[in-house]
Amino acid sequence: MPDDRYYVTDVPPETPEPADQPAPWTTTTVVGKRLPRVDGYERVSGAAVYTADVVLPDMLYAAVLRCPHAHAMVRKIDTSKAEKMPGVAAILTDKSPGADVPWFNARTGPLSRLFDPHCRYEGEEVAGVAAETPYQAWDAVRAIAVEYEVLPFVADAEDALKPGAVAIHQGGNRSGDVTRYARGDVDAGFAAADVVVEQIYSTACEIHAPTETHASVARWDGNRLVVWDSTQGVYPIQSGLVQLLKLPSSSVRVIGHYMGGGFGSKLSVSKHTVIAALLAKMTARPVKLHLTREESFLAVGNRPPDTMTLKAGVKKDGTLTALQMTVLGTGGAYPGGGVGSVDWVVRDLYTCPNVKTELTDVFINAGQARAFRAPGHPQGAWALEQMMDQLAERIGMDPVEFRLKNVPMVSQATSGTPPYSSTGLKACLEEGAKRFGWSEARKRARTEGPIRRGVGVAAGLWRGGGGGPPATIIVKLFADGSANLNMGASDLGTGTKTVMAMVVSEELGVPLEKIQIEWADTATTQYATASGGSKTVPTESPAARAAALDVKQQLLTMAAAQLKVTPEELVLKNGEIVSTADSSKKVAIAGVNALRGRGLIVGVGYRGPNPEGKVICPFGAHFAEVEVNTRTGEVKVTRFLAAQDSGRAMNELTYENQTQGGITMGLGLALTEGRILDRSQTGKMVNRNWHDYKIPTAMDVPVEQIVIPIDLHDYQANSTAAKGLGEPATVPAAPAVANAIYNACGVRTPDTPVNPLRLMGLLAASKKRG
Amino acid sequence: MPDDRYYVTDVPPETPEPADQPAPWTTTTVVGKRLPRVDGYERVSGAAVYTADVVLPDMLYAAVLRCPHAHAMVRKIDTSKAEKMPGVAAILTDKSPGADVPWFNARTGPLSRLFDPHCRYEGEEVAGVAAETPYQAWDAVRAIAVEYEVLPFVADAEDALKPGAVAIHQGGNRSGDVTRYARGDVDAGFAAADVVVEQIYSTACEIHAPTETHASVARWDGNRLVVWDSTQGVYPIQSGLVQLLKLPSSSVRVIGHYMGGGFGSKLSVSKHTVIAALLAKMTARPVKLHLTREESFLAVGNRPPDTMTLKAGVKKDGTLTALQMTVLGTGGAYPGGGVGSVDWVVRDLYTCPNVKTELTDVFINAGQARAFRAPGHPQGAWALEQMMDQLAERIGMDPVEFRLKNVPMVSQATSGTPPYSSTGLKACLEEGAKRFGWSEARKRARTEGPIRRGVGVAAGLWRGGGGGPPATIIVKLFADGSANLNMGASDLGTGTKTVMAMVVSEELGVPLEKIQIEWADTATTQYATASGGSKTVPTESPAARAAALDVKQQLLTMAAAQLKVTPEELVLKNGEIVSTADSSKKVAIAGVNALRGRGLIVGVGYRGPNPEGKVICPFGAHFAEVEVNTRTGEVKVTRFLAAQDSGRAMNELTYENQTQGGITMGLGLALTEGRILDRSQTGKMVNRNWHDYKIPTAMDVPVEQIVIPIDLHDYQANSTAAKGLGEPATVPAAPAVANAIYNACGVRTPDTPVNPLRLMGLLAASKKRG
Repeated sequence: MPDDRYYVTDVPPETPEPADQPAPWTTTTVVGKRLPRVDGYERVSGAAVYTADVVLPDMLYAAVLRCPHAHAMVRKIDTSKAEKMPGVAAILTDKSPGADVPWFNARTGPLSRLFDPHCRYEGEEVAGVAAETPYQAWDAVRAIAVEYEVLPFVADAEDALKPGAVAIHQGGNRSGDVTRYARGDVDAGFAAADVVVEQIYSTACEIHAPTETHASVARWDGNRLVVWDSTQGVYPIQSGLVQLLKLPSSSVRVIGHYMGGGFGSKLSVSKHTVIAALLAKMTARPVKLHLTREESFLAVGNRPPDTMTLKAGVKKDGTLTALQMTVLGTGGAYPGGGVGSVDWVVRDLYTCPNVKTELTDVFINAGQARAFRAPGHPQGAWALEQMMDQLAERIGMDPVEFRLKNVPMVSQATSGTPPYSSTGLKACLEEGAKRFGWSEARKRARTEGPIRRGVGVAAGLWRGGGGGPPATIIVKLFADGSANLNMGASDLGTGTKTVMAMVVSEELGVPLEKIQIEWADTATTQYATASGGSKTVPTESPAARAAALDVKQQLLTMAAAQLKVTPEELVLKNGEIVSTADSSKKVAIAGVNALRGRGLIVGVGYRGPNPEGKVICPFGAHFAEVEVNTRTGEVKVTRFLAAQDSGRAMNELTYENQTQGGITMGLGLALTEGRILDRSQTGKMVNRNWHDYKIPTAMDVPVEQIVIPIDLHDYQANSTAAKGLGEPATVPAAPAVANAIYNACGVRTPDTPVNPLRLMGLLAASKKRG
Repeated sequence: MPDDRYYVTDVPPETPEPADQPAPWTTTTVVGKRLPRVDGYERVSGAAVYTADVVLPDMLYAAVLRCPHAHAMVRKIDTSKAEKMPGVAAILTDKSPGADVPWFNARTGPLSRLFDPHCRYEGEEVAGVAAETPYQAWDAVRAIAVEYEVLPFVADAEDALKPGAVAIHQGGNRSGDVTRYARGDVDAGFAAADVVVEQIYSTACEIHAPTETHASVARWDGNRLVVWDSTQGVYPIQSGLVQLLKLPSSSVRVIGHYMGGGFGSKLSVSKHTVIAALLAKMTARPVKLHLTREESFLAVGNRPPDTMTLKAGVKKDGTLTALQMTVLGTGGAYPGGGVGSVDWVVRDLYTCPNVKTELTDVFINAGQARAFRAPGHPQGAWALEQMMDQLAERIGMDPVEFRLKNVPMVSQATSGTPPYSSTGLKACLEEGAKRFGWSEARKRARTEGPIRRGVGVAAGLWRGGGGGPPATIIVKLFADGSANLNMGASDLGTGTKTVMAMVVSEELGVPLEKIQIEWADTATTQYATASGGSKTVPTESPAARAAALDVKQQLLTMAAAQLKVTPEELVLKNGEIVSTADSSKKVAIAGVNALRGRGLIVGVGYRGPNPEGKVICPFGAHFAEVEVNTRTGEVKVTRFLAAQDSGRAMNELTYENQTQGGITMGLGLALTEGRILDRSQTGKMVNRNWHDYKIPTAMDVPVEQIVIPIDLHDYQANSTAAKGLGEPATVPAAPAVANAIYNACGVRTPDTPVNPLRLMGLLAASKKRG
């Protein structure tokens, strides 16, 4: 329930909720509980059909020929040998009918083509093959003879801006204008500071690496295209295909169903999907195109690498006086937001009157960046949250205290500095520190001997996570009291289906196992925006609640007529409709004659608008304990605690799961992950597999992972009082580890990944090697 | 437009339409046009996926062991050899876990079991097998050793009532009580008549024989069952499975999609569907069970054979004074409505004050009857419409004139004799006779020589075809002006999808090719009753119209806000919303910002109730010209005209197609079709294939088939002014042919089929052989 510590004082908790919103839940019996995923059986047993599992009669398998050079021009393609290979049904090149598809970029318009002769990175698409088996398709890909003119490459953001650097696009290597933000006067701020620190930080390029690689199956029914796609949003894929293939929306059906993660790499249409669709058209047969792990490393997205110079000023009492950040990043060979949102935590995480940022994005010959879980925020937090510790040390203040002193209640970076609908950051820091045993752990730090031990804290916010319209959900209540939930949203594995069914169950009292869920299909389910940016729950759950309430209202009206009472005096409880005025007047759902007669009730729910004049942001604070082996450079995270303010915790278990995923991803950023390009010889990525590119495994995460949901019911935000969780759960994780490493061994680690090789160098340089 | 000749005088056409109904269409631009089916390409190209085409990963194929005797008791089943056959995954018998399913009959409750040891007809289910291939399943079926005790059989309805007849059920061979109906005083009526005629007629048992035989594919997702079924109604199949398998509605999803005819045999759940579901559960794999044509002849339904004694009295002026009918029929071994509705045409087709009927239904050892296109009506019409000609001849009146004299405007058999919402029978007879050239053709009859030529007329009604609630349809309008139509109704091949899309197109101006249709899926589409009884169009099209109007209203409201006008002054025309007050104020659908913002509009439509105090019936009159070869007994139908009153003709082409199908089926009833049971030796059906059981082919139907839609817009019935067409299109066809045969050669043909063997006998007996 609202706690006035976490709302700004001029927006008291009793502020009325936005108009047209149902009354807050006074208590809940399903929502908030710790419940396993409704589709757990299907996912664990193998019954769940992912896109890669879709098998259609007469289906062909496709493979893509990709440019093997970091930078090259295709001079000639000879498919004659490949055409004669066994099982080959079609070969698609830039010359094939219908394949001359201009490839759009949201910000700049067409920048290349589906198969562009100018290949700007290793892995760029050159041709596609459809054959009877995947092996035949791959054999044929290898038999296509391509004459490449290999071009000089640039594999580093700084190199890209040097005079004489090879130009990846006409107009040079700058990707868009430099992004600038300023408030107040940083020079005055630094002048007023007692301590000023400046440091360069960098984060390496991370690969999304979802469990399920990208896959599409395309089938044409006459002029209509049906695509099964591993996607975070069927409607954006539909509109992407509509735009690229010049079809009406009604002619493109996209089915999402089960999927195994996306992390931002499956938000928009990819070239492989279009290739599958065109091959299916050419052959008049269904075509499946399932990318290999290697292709997934090269060509479907990444978190861009950023180099961040951060300068900060602070007074001795802990008041921040100025923050200044310059960023150089690269989204690869195409505009992919190499620096997007990197400065948001600097702008808005802490109260600071003077802030200035400048972000430069450049092209290099590498795969294109895509939205990656909390775009920009983990990078920015890597810099800011280490800086906060550096400042705290300089002024002799506890890092938690220092952060608490600067918790904001308004969004300073938003015009008019509007209040947050709720700010749980204070609670995250306080309750996290208490549960983690922060003060005691700090005292217990072991700073001598080969195995050092230390603890670190970091905070974060996500400049999103409020969700918003449009969203439509339909709930059907069958006459036997079971129900059907119809929504267009994808369930990336996070538990969306479970949470939405819980909302329906809460309102209608239908047990979860009696709710059949249909989702992620543009033809048969309702409109939903893509699942990304921590907005699925805050966007969809109010629509689910509205749909269930619509059903309930109709049901009570039917029952009222039967019981000869008014609908207002009726409540639905345990599958029965009971009069509050006379409890003898009641009827079970299955006994409502009008419902039996009609067969079912259809309820439609929409997501209402967000409150005006407020900013909705989730917050979080992470606490890490590490052991550093100063003889090997190995870092072991022994304990981790994440306190998250994402409004109401809709399901304790999935909340915990998603936070653990965020922590794990943060550990990867901090300690192991990073794309390595061969900068000197070939420009190619050298660690394109699980062996060379390390993501944390179950062996690498701490056994003790504590998740604290602050569970602040934010009815200022929406009718289910939840904010998003996916992104904020990963933002502060990496710098919390970095700060713990410093606490353990006194070495600052400005660059990710802090792997043994790098850490040994730092320890040696600072003479702290054990 | 309403024509007051066809409404009763006390219900003038300007009577307001039922409440809550949208205004009648003043003109239409899509509805009523002659348009090909929207899914024609898919159906013709082979792209349409029928249940038999569904292929799922890891799917097994099932086959059913059926009793080879007309009547037997299973004493022992030995599956040990079959279990060891290659590819066999499971064998299901009455002893298998979960297979002890009581088999219900709607009227009587459980009468048998899924696998009942007492096999009451040849083809009754004894066991099921699932194997890797259909051939392996069939091999295993043949390897199951069953010890039968063969029982005496009864293969004839009259025999079934004889003393000492073998009892098929405990309690004897009467299937339910004798059905009796009476109004007025038939004895007084006969006394008042100038002419009284009595005749015994009979119709043979017809097999439904849809192009696509019955098929089901069952798959379990955990505890949830998904069934692809060739069905006329996914919701009745769902509720049937829910009842039989004791599952909540939310745990059973039924998908119908493409299907190739049902004619009443696919309205309710069949044993093979349950067998597929149980085998899928046993094996944890999907199972397909696709019945063979032979099984389809034996075990999934038929039109019951009826013997009808009809006595009629008439005055010389053509006034009917009395009708009396007794019927003996048999629905086979289980209650299947052996006589249901046989007397309806006698009760209600013509004005007659004194009517008495008595119908007796008995069990025999044969496959169970099921609803068959216009249950009972073609049988009754076979009797009544020949009798009408016999009476007309006796009083020297033209058959058309005689029928016109007795056209009713009220439903005499309904309590209170309420008016029909419209009666187009007069128009059918008048306009049909005119277009057919009835009088001239009668004069041209050739009654000498070996090849005789004659013409005949017959009329009919269908005591249904008004449709009614419940029905829900959802229409989505995408921001690019294309749309999605979501309805639960099946499209049996008749054009339901086409007609519903036309209604949406009419209201929203979206071209048909930009309407994507989802249908017949309990999980993803809206509630619809089964498609049968000529009620799909009158039930669903008003819901489709309401949904489209809901969309339109929302669109106009959005556009009004944008154009700063009132929604009331806006109209939607050619994809634009235009102000009627100021035509410069307009915006294209794609230009409505609020629609773009939301992505799409969702409209929900319900079917309102039918008008009180009225009866909704479609009518028809058929005219046939035949050539009879009196030396071979062959009858060639050379010309046929059907004039149908089914309210508004929604689509001229599908209207014509469906009527032609009705005519063809009537020709089969009249001339070729009839189940033949071996009454003396085995009781088994001897003509269980296309070779021995003749349905009319393209070679057997007249080249000249004229269909006249009377196109009476019956807004008294519903908001699209349409009545049903499927059943009335077949009711009068057979007796029109019989009457033409009589006109050609002077021989009455009381029994179907009038095949050469039978007709030569009649010609010989009456000495009219050529």
